Amino acid sequence: MKRTMKLASLLATVSFGVLAASEALSAESLADVMKRRGLNEKDVLAAAKTYTPTGKRDEFVVFSSGGQSGQVIVYGIPSMRILKYIGVFTPEPWQAYGFDDESKRVLREGSVVDGREITFGDTHHPAISETNGEYDGQFLFINDKNTPRIAVIDLKDFETKQIVLNPILQSEHGGTFVSPNTDYIIEAAQYPAPLGGDFVPLEQFNEKYRGAVTYWKFNRAEGRIEPENSFSLELPPYSQDLSDFGKGPSDGWSFTNSFCAERYVGGIERGRPPFEAGCSAKDTDFLHVVNWKKAEELFKAGKVKKIKGHSVIDIATAAKEGVLFLIPEPKSPHGVDVTPDGKFITVSGKLDTHTSIFSFEKIQAQIKAGAFAGKDEYGIPILDMQKSLHKQVEIGLGPLHTQYDSKPCVAYTSVYVDSQLAKWDYCEGKVLDKISIHYNIGHLMAMEGDSAKPAGKYVVALNKLAIDRFNPVGPLHPQNHQLIDASNDKLQLLYDMPLPLGEPHYAVAISADKLKPHIRYPHGTDSRTEKKHPASVRAGQERTERSPGKVEVFGTVIRSHITPEIIEASEGDEVIIHLTNLERAQDETHGFAISKHNVNLSLEPGKTASVTFKANKAGTYPYYCTEFCSALHLEMEGYLLVQPANYKAADTAKGKEGVAYTQKDYDARVASNVATQKVIDSVVGYITSVNYKDFPSVVALVEDATDQLNFAKGAKDKSEDFAKKADWQNAMLWAEQWFQYQVKAADIGIRAKTHLEQNGAKKVQ
Amino acid sequence: MKRTMKLASLLATVSFGVLAASEALSAESLADVMKRRGLNEKDVLAAAKTYTPTGKRDEFVVFSSGGQSGQVIVYGIPSMRILKYIGVFTPEPWQAYGFDDESKRVLREGSVVDGREITFGDTHHPAISETNGEYDGQFLFINDKNTPRIAVIDLKDFETKQIVLNPILQSEHGGTFVSPNTDYIIEAAQYPAPLGGDFVPLEQFNEKYRGAVTYWKFNRAEGRIEPENSFSLELPPYSQDLSDFGKGPSDGWSFTNSFCAERYVGGIERGRPPFEAGCSAKDTDFLHVVNWKKAEELFKAGKVKKIKGHSVIDIATAAKEGVLFLIPEPKSPHGVDVTPDGKFITVSGKLDTHTSIFSFEKIQAQIKAGAFAGKDEYGIPILDMQKSLHKQVEIGLGPLHTQYDSKPCVAYTSVYVDSQLAKWDYCEGKVLDKISIHYNIGHLMAMEGDSAKPAGKYVVALNKLAIDRFNPVGPLHPQNHQLIDASNDKLQLLYDMPLPLGEPHYAVAISADKLKPHIRYPHGTDSRTEKKHPASVRAGQERTERSPGKVEVFGTVIRSHITPEIIEASEGDEVIIHLTNLERAQDETHGFAISKHNVNLSLEPGKTASVTFKANKAGTYPYYCTEFCSALHLEMEGYLLVQPANYKAADTAKGKEGVAYTQKDYDARVASNVATQKVIDSVVGYITSVNYKDFPSVVALVEDATDQLNFAKGAKDKSEDFAKKADWQNAMLWAEQWFQYQVKAADIGIRAKTHLEQNGAKKVQ
Repeated sequence: MKRTMKLASLLATVSFGVLAASEALSAESLADVMKRRGLNEKDVLAAAKTYTPTGKRDEFVVFSSGGQSGQVIVYGIPSMRILKYIGVFTPEPWQAYGFDDESKRVLREGSVVDGREITFGDTHHPAISETNGEYDGQFLFINDKNTPRIAVIDLKDFETKQIVLNPILQSEHGGTFVSPNTDYIIEAAQYPAPLGGDFVPLEQFNEKYRGAVTYWKFNRAEGRIEPENSFSLELPPYSQDLSDFGKGPSDGWSFTNSFCAERYVGGIERGRPPFEAGCSAKDTDFLHVVNWKKAEELFKAGKVKKIKGHSVIDIATAAKEGVLFLIPEPKSPHGVDVTPDGKFITVSGKLDTHTSIFSFEKIQAQIKAGAFAGKDEYGIPILDMQKSLHKQVEIGLGPLHTQYDSKPCVAYTSVYVDSQLAKWDYCEGKVLDKISIHYNIGHLMAMEGDSAKPAGKYVVALNKLAIDRFNPVGPLHPQNHQLIDASNDKLQLLYDMPLPLGEPHYAVAISADKLKPHIRYPHGTDSRTEKKHPASVRAGQERTERSPGKVEVFGTVIRSHITPEIIEASEGDEVIIHLTNLERAQDETHGFAISKHNVNLSLEPGKTASVTFKANKAGTYPYYCTEFCSALHLEMEGYLLVQPANYKAADTAKGKEGVAYTQKDYDARVASNVATQKVIDSVVGYITSVNYKDFPSVVALVEDATDQLNFAKGAKDKSEDFAKKADWQNAMLWAEQWFQYQVKAADIGIRAKTHLEQNGAKKVQ
Repeated sequence: MKRTMKLASLLATVSFGVLAASEALSAESLADVMKRRGLNEKDVLAAAKTYTPTGKRDEFVVFSSGGQSGQVIVYGIPSMRILKYIGVFTPEPWQAYGFDDESKRVLREGSVVDGREITFGDTHHPAISETNGEYDGQFLFINDKNTPRIAVIDLKDFETKQIVLNPILQSEHGGTFVSPNTDYIIEAAQYPAPLGGDFVPLEQFNEKYRGAVTYWKFNRAEGRIEPENSFSLELPPYSQDLSDFGKGPSDGWSFTNSFCAERYVGGIERGRPPFEAGCSAKDTDFLHVVNWKKAEELFKAGKVKKIKGHSVIDIATAAKEGVLFLIPEPKSPHGVDVTPDGKFITVSGKLDTHTSIFSFEKIQAQIKAGAFAGKDEYGIPILDMQKSLHKQVEIGLGPLHTQYDSKPCVAYTSVYVDSQLAKWDYCEGKVLDKISIHYNIGHLMAMEGDSAKPAGKYVVALNKLAIDRFNPVGPLHPQNHQLIDASNDKLQLLYDMPLPLGEPHYAVAISADKLKPHIRYPHGTDSRTEKKHPASVRAGQERTERSPGKVEVFGTVIRSHITPEIIEASEGDEVIIHLTNLERAQDETHGFAISKHNVNLSLEPGKTASVTFKANKAGTYPYYCTEFCSALHLEMEGYLLVQPANYKAADTAKGKEGVAYTQKDYDARVASNVATQKVIDSVVGYITSVNYKDFPSVVALVEDATDQLNFAKGAKDKSEDFAKKADWQNAMLWAEQWFQYQVKAADIGIRAKTHLEQNGAKKVQ
């Protein structure tokens, strides 16, 4: 009694999250710290350029592929702090991705192949949706190299909404790249195979194995890819690699490079030299130049063949109709990157020392003139390499990928074997600066650096080896993304960031102010369809429906209880549980897990999610909220009771109460509640005395608090009813619940009050 | 030709990973940066205290639970950079955890329950192995709350080696905690259930539902838990929570607290007040005090009953033999934490404002005197709370967990409702300082702060809400670990660290110098058994074995090819692939994935791993190395060809070569190779001219380079044999492979040379 009084009165004085004014600086000076930690002035400058104090935001947000983790990694620049892993191709239980029925449906769109369930992906190239060639921050796309798939992530809530399996490819690498207005998303093959994937012996590699590039149609209004409006272009069995869309003057065209244009088939165990020998024997491979607007016309005109129900323009048609051209490019290139102005296409042969800058104008002049150097074995016109080049620049050993700066003509290229990052001028064709990185850079990322309007300031080296950069964590090392200051003439290394999970291949960075994610869902939302969930309910509407062999629960979660608290099923029943999170307050996520069952939900404010399972074994299974959601989170519990088949409860069964309460207990509880209500009234008084309605996050808190106060009134009424009947057991317990609702209302109210005080709320009359 | 010559000569000049001397400071001064980024002096000091320049190491390494992600998160202090996620209870493809046969066996030890496959865990409390009560850095243990399990992670390679399913619990929370010499690991129940998990109606909660605490026996030499030498102590259906082992004077005893000692059963949907009301109605719960050494004697004497084959000491025996005692403790405590000297036990009731410090001496005095305040309904002696207390200290609203500083008597306690962290003196019983955190702290972590010898310096607040601290990433927020400087009288907030995946509950921090992980495995190691893999092979020993319905491959991976490159199977075959990574160089991991099959391996240097699958559908399936392991990583490819049943290859089938080579091609290739060899000889000359044998990592590189040079010689011999026969096709391709081996040898050699130059190698005669 004394303690709960204290709780109530203390609640009124809590200042939520304000740094104590008495917090003093430590005794050490900056010079002391530098000496103790062995830092020089350059280190301190780098620290100041990256350190982001509590509550301050990053300038850029990065979406990085997670490689074999099958995820997307989100981090901030310049702090280099990882903000989120997004589940895409791999089930991930924190997000309940692949655990709730709703996300399982998304994941399974592309994860069951010929009866095999695929539980990972090898993500490579994320792409942010574009408007007029500039990042718009609405959607993110990413591919899976191993099981050719594309995923659509909505940046409103950072959730995967759709996965589309490529019907004709067995392998891909060069996805995803978006057209300047995100009409299409490119996914290009990598290792050749018969289109559709049937068995064909390798002896027929030249004749029957093929590459392809798929143009996936994106419906921006729906936020979904439309497979029926998508098509592919058949390509020769040159192992296609990366692609890029033209923009500005080159809009309507796309570019896809390749390696192993030798079409070599290895076989060490058969006495043949390995793939690596035969695939890098010639000095050039082929850049594929595609008029995709014309290809779209062919598709719409029905000039396609169908493979596994998918529309494919064959090589002969493409060559005949002027859709497809080849240009020799330095061997085994890793990237093809169109300049922001759309005039040039940069390609680097990784076994060469140059970057080659192709001129779109020169390419078009040859095409218009019909001036070709020849045709390949498949009848595709080949343009002359020298006549297509603007310049070649000696960059270093193993140049791979290029991105662009906000300054005109400035490009950055990763140099793998040299472990360097080069800054150079693609107009003049000269190197401006180089910086060594640690170690072996693959892709690099400039801010919005592959868009029509790069943002400059920083470049990140996506290194493939970390070796000795970090505290050792066993034979499997983290990756290392190194942040480089690119705002001055000289590049300056700022920060080494370990990637703790997954091997990122490519990443894209967007100005943080272009992202406007939601902080909650409208009540009862199925987050994967983005529609009202048909099984969502409001407080008080919870119910359990039973039919033979089936139990279906329509429940809710709110601080600090799950409704229902007891679920009964019979052995063998199918159990379906739908839960709606009734909270509105930011970050007030609840979880739901059932003992020894693979049942695990993540319920963000407003979300409704479902789980379906077989209660296959009689037993007693506790369930609980997996989030530390309130002081009483451990008490947010319940029981799934799976009764043996044909179980009949004894008629006389009535549980013994653990503790018996008296009128004295009840009176003490009520006295404390009355005192608590005074505290709450004072908080409510403050909130309604200021312009709280101007603060949307506070309005959500006030709504939540009002809910809790209404619940409190309901519990109070019950308590008083039982007291009238001198049922002190129930009177006391309902009075206790009345108090629990009060505590939560006060907690939420204080959060609102503090926010208002800290953010300059003004008195209203 | 010109290009490859250039490659060869450039290789000699590459300085691997050295910062270019010309790198200059940027134009901005520190004051400029502070102004631009809105930093004050305190921010810069915090930046300097946390920023860790490239290649510098962290002072402490943290192992944090990953909550529902089912993983362990490893990060460094003070940089707060995440170094690794370790797969524990959830499959994780980057590590191939749950994908290769070897780790599948570990994961499945505890993941198949009554025929249900559990693919996640709710990890809560990691513990580092101890020697004399101090962290020794050898092993890490962690529990799963949802499916009661304990995992053993070996810190030699940061891999999960064993998972043990608790045979009698349906729910747990209070694991893992280790005895001072890691003889035993505690796992305590949470939500009561019949021991063994059978169905019993909730009406028999008091009579038949039970808690328990399990003492798992750990065999340090084997690095494994011994279930047959482990036992449990039956406890009443008070929801047990956390535990701690005594040490020093209290060694031999353990302490487990509880909530809902009211034994209340909710049921909102039945008209009953929820669990939260009935479970927090009384002012006290029970601290369980256990003489575990005496319990061990009872177990060894066979004074146990068997439940599901597991030995359980029942309550009556424990009470009679003086093994189990209860002390009232402030209601709904979250932590029980023994002081470093073992003299006191701190408990905080989360709905109270005090921490309560129990005196082990006072507890023992009462036990020895047989002076009990009474017994509970189950016959367990209850000690008087006031007579057991050393002091009670008013800390704030919602105190939860306590950890200790290196300074005598100094403790830190997390204060949930106040969102504060308190520093206080448990000897004198007074508060020393408080700092506000953002927001709602759960656990806290001091450096080695629950051991017999805390290391001081830092405290980390493990916050449950992030709300507005970071760039928004949708309704599901990251968690926030806040680093606090604890080296001075006043606590200073240093850093906000988002946790991007999982909801950490507790974490432990160890001095980095106590960890000595391996960087590679001995050749052909099964990392999960830590023994030689029976299917490992060396270079040249690769083979494929066939029997009806089965294809078994014994292969290898090395820069840049997989042996074999073609695997043939018939539809319906079981395919088993064992691969050994032949590399020795640090961080030279290869991956292996097969198109559209759930086949994904991570092969660190020296590791052998296996995958078994059904080739259930005829088709053409490329496979490849998923790691960017060398310049030719994309060429590290092969094909799984699944032939239709009864397929017969045509006798005449011989593939057409993509490119035909001539003597001229061969001669040019050889000339280039000869030039390359001169470069390599000069690198080898340098290495052998210095004391490279004093550098273990260089010795590994030299061994790898020597391998590659031997392979080069083999390819050269083949090339020359074919040239003698005027088979220019094969002569040229083998000459190309000879060159590929040379390039890799040179690359490795240069890495070795650079390391020697940077680390002060000395000339030898």
